[in-house]
Amino acid sequence: MALPNLQMALRQWTEVVGADNVTSDATSLQAAERCTFGMENRIPAIVRPANRDQVQECLRVANRWQTPVYPISSGKNWGYGSRVPASDGCTLLDLGRMKRIVDFSEELAYVTVEPGVTQEQLYAFLKERKSRLWMDATGASPQCSLIGNTMERGFGHTPYGDHFSYVCGLEVVLPGGDAIETGFARFADSKAAPLHKWGLGPALDGLFSQSNFGIVTRMTVWLMPEPEYFQAYYFRCESAGDLRGIVDALRPLRLNGTIRSSSHIANDYKVISALRQYPWRETGGRTPLQGDLMKHFRREMKIGPWNGSGALYGTKAQVKEARRLLRQALSGKASRLQFLDDRMLRLAARFAKPYQMISGWNLERTLAVLKPVYGLMRGVPTEHPLASTYWRKRTPPPAQMDPDRDGCGLLWCSPVAPNDGAHAEHLTNLAAGIMLRHGFEPAISLTVLTERSIACIISIAYDRDVPGEDARAHTCYMELLETCSREGYPSYRLSVNSMSAKTGDGTYPNLLRNLKATLDPKNVLAPGRYIPSPDRESVLAATVAGSVRSR
Amino acid sequence: MALPNLQMALRQWTEVVGADNVTSDATSLQAAERCTFGMENRIPAIVRPANRDQVQECLRVANRWQTPVYPISSGKNWGYGSRVPASDGCTLLDLGRMKRIVDFSEELAYVTVEPGVTQEQLYAFLKERKSRLWMDATGASPQCSLIGNTMERGFGHTPYGDHFSYVCGLEVVLPGGDAIETGFARFADSKAAPLHKWGLGPALDGLFSQSNFGIVTRMTVWLMPEPEYFQAYYFRCESAGDLRGIVDALRPLRLNGTIRSSSHIANDYKVISALRQYPWRETGGRTPLQGDLMKHFRREMKIGPWNGSGALYGTKAQVKEARRLLRQALSGKASRLQFLDDRMLRLAARFAKPYQMISGWNLERTLAVLKPVYGLMRGVPTEHPLASTYWRKRTPPPAQMDPDRDGCGLLWCSPVAPNDGAHAEHLTNLAAGIMLRHGFEPAISLTVLTERSIACIISIAYDRDVPGEDARAHTCYMELLETCSREGYPSYRLSVNSMSAKTGDGTYPNLLRNLKATLDPKNVLAPGRYIPSPDRESVLAATVAGSVRSR
Repeated sequence: MALPNLQMALRQWTEVVGADNVTSDATSLQAAERCTFGMENRIPAIVRPANRDQVQECLRVANRWQTPVYPISSGKNWGYGSRVPASDGCTLLDLGRMKRIVDFSEELAYVTVEPGVTQEQLYAFLKERKSRLWMDATGASPQCSLIGNTMERGFGHTPYGDHFSYVCGLEVVLPGGDAIETGFARFADSKAAPLHKWGLGPALDGLFSQSNFGIVTRMTVWLMPEPEYFQAYYFRCESAGDLRGIVDALRPLRLNGTIRSSSHIANDYKVISALRQYPWRETGGRTPLQGDLMKHFRREMKIGPWNGSGALYGTKAQVKEARRLLRQALSGKASRLQFLDDRMLRLAARFAKPYQMISGWNLERTLAVLKPVYGLMRGVPTEHPLASTYWRKRTPPPAQMDPDRDGCGLLWCSPVAPNDGAHAEHLTNLAAGIMLRHGFEPAISLTVLTERSIACIISIAYDRDVPGEDARAHTCYMELLETCSREGYPSYRLSVNSMSAKTGDGTYPNLLRNLKATLDPKNVLAPGRYIPSPDRESVLAATVAGSVRSR
Repeated sequence: MALPNLQMALRQWTEVVGADNVTSDATSLQAAERCTFGMENRIPAIVRPANRDQVQECLRVANRWQTPVYPISSGKNWGYGSRVPASDGCTLLDLGRMKRIVDFSEELAYVTVEPGVTQEQLYAFLKERKSRLWMDATGASPQCSLIGNTMERGFGHTPYGDHFSYVCGLEVVLPGGDAIETGFARFADSKAAPLHKWGLGPALDGLFSQSNFGIVTRMTVWLMPEPEYFQAYYFRCESAGDLRGIVDALRPLRLNGTIRSSSHIANDYKVISALRQYPWRETGGRTPLQGDLMKHFRREMKIGPWNGSGALYGTKAQVKEARRLLRQALSGKASRLQFLDDRMLRLAARFAKPYQMISGWNLERTLAVLKPVYGLMRGVPTEHPLASTYWRKRTPPPAQMDPDRDGCGLLWCSPVAPNDGAHAEHLTNLAAGIMLRHGFEPAISLTVLTERSIACIISIAYDRDVPGEDARAHTCYMELLETCSREGYPSYRLSVNSMSAKTGDGTYPNLLRNLKATLDPKNVLAPGRYIPSPDRESVLAATVAGSVRSR
């Protein structure tokens, strides 16, 4: 009797990557199938190629046996699905072994990396070389892959925060196994290959972000030169209604280039969940947290309903002028506008108590929140925001945090709004109402991602170990997604459990389907990921039938 | 007897757009077949749709009769092919009637336009509204289409100079006649549609630039807020070897955001050809211009072998600091660093003579060159650079310039190099050598287009009325293109007579062919434009056979 397709594919993948790099034990697979929300998709195996040639060969095998694969770089896509594929029965193609930094220029300020290169690896690489270049870091995790985050169009906190805008020269393995390079990189020895985005002819980079049209095996990331001087700013609103005026006051400074990076405005829930776990004792175990108790925490933690941060980069004189303009813009709109630089941070750490006496500002506690954000604004990766995924857990975060393993519930909904106060107010009110109605704390942040747009990140944090919570969180998430979209604020990114929600008929989805059918006629690469599958059910049925696992 | 395909198509196109908007008289067609270099491709008709629906219908007709069309917006693609299609027998789809400005926001700083909207139209629109927003203008012509230029990835001189980076929300008619919108615009009522580039899922904008994958019928262009203060800078090199140091000195300022727009560095030939026609008398009719006579002109016009310009934008204090940093960077590397603002320009115009006595600077002559460039750096369209296409003509440019009509020879080769002095020097020496060897003046400019890359524009300007010059210019152009590419500097853009030169086999061209075959199975949209045709010859043969014209 002929072996099922998957088994034949596994045999050949094993020949390609070696037995040590194929995992099929139930424990490892079950771990990979867990993310921070309820997902049922099964993973029959994990295959770990070492280089581009092996990725190409793995895809050829997948086509030969019509067996789908799902690439992950670091698999730290927390809140959106971690390592879990968008459809059932995909073998994970784990690119974590591809950890080479293949090119670097201090003068032209770039680095070329493979998918396994993490934030902390690049940070260490730059430190080691005493480079004067800064990377941009996302708050997700130091172990997060640069390519993975960028292809999901993640963002960070420096002037290079909109990651996809600051990369070029992708090396992509197409679903059939052929490899291309984008931009000028397609021409042999092109000197501008790591330096210029568009190349000659159509610009294809965008095709390979948020899609299943190819596997990015190499990418050039632009780096920013360390400024002569760096200063962070922090402010807060005294009342929720002040948000509108603040967004409108910051916009002209972002548009005219005075502020070059994202301002980040977090609500009280977001700040509190970054500072501590759920107040089970104070609430007597009731959820969600709201009302007078929230007022109490705001007062105690000296935070407002909205709390802003951001940074200024430049020479001393440039930052001084930006500071003046920022003060002027926020005057009468935000309160407690504070500036912080390296010198003040050193002093503050040493003289927190006397500083508090002079300024009335409790620096010790504040520094606990500020320091990781301060670091992020200088491109220093941090694990700190990860702790907030333990918000609703009954036990404190362990030393080695792993939200997938520890049953931390987390779903991120991420609608995009105009950089406009009225829209920011409307969207956040909308989201908060839905969240509270479903019994979750509306932890919301607004990132002024570009000159004209705001990414709103709404976190549903819950405890997966409480029965029924997965389902409740999913319902809340879908309502958030659909309501925000209907009101004109579609998300910039989707979690793997909602990728089919955006499909449907129409010219646009049909175009995506056509492109997919052309690039991946056997639908073997990450079926269902962002792109509607032509006849998804039949392909998956065939795959699952061939599965070697039984549970 | 059945009518040939083209004749059937023309009948139906006429039904779609009306007889007034179909041109098939020989004079008009011959005019459209003329560009600034030798091209033989014939145009059987010109069809002028009024709106997107008509564009869709025209493409459906083209598919029905397998008759190729070639869209132009304003057709001012001078130096790269004007209105002439990339292959023979294409009916022109002239989008010049689609002149609506369909959306505008002063606060969020954008405008949404159709393909017929020209630079001068947008400029007038902003003036009329007393808008505080600046557009970016390219030097080509005030009648140049914004969409046409952007889709060719043209550039200008303000901080928004890299046009394709500052647009979003494309409306595209696909070759089959269906229409899509890119980015968030694909979702009904999405508030961020004109504000955010990437949308959700793969980003498709890049597909439609420099390709034949669709016709862009609408585009949102971001505008920059008028700065509180604007100051232009000018400098020159005393010796050709200084170029290297200057590029390296400017790079850190561009990388760190002190300089936010392109610096433009033109050689002596480029400046001279902007100021006057070929010195036929002084050379005794000999070409090319070189040697002692060049020295004479440099001295007389007070220019160097390289001459730089650029601008600073910001508050008074921001510009002051940028000026300090620029002075410091160029000190000892460039000479005669001069700054110019509106006030000085007004004064200079009134007191040019006394100013010359004080400063030694002949402002009157200099202003003639500086003013158009000064305007461009503020986004003011100008016709001035057009005059240089008459460089080698024996009669002066007419009041109504039209290089296509007037037999001006112009070919632009536009290699991209790293923003690095050694590369800039190597590339420009290479180009100058080739040009002089072919008997043309090497008019070259370097535009520091982005933080990391330089677009080098090499102009071959000649007189098409001199027998043999078309062929000689073409040979020179192809040698430039191929040599630069071989040395690692491929062009960012191609002229219609060289679009087949970059094709060939390999995974990348095959991918483009596959995409084309998927999007345009009958190859009716702009065959041969940037994308290699699958079986170009047969399609074109069929078309030409059906031509109704005989000449």
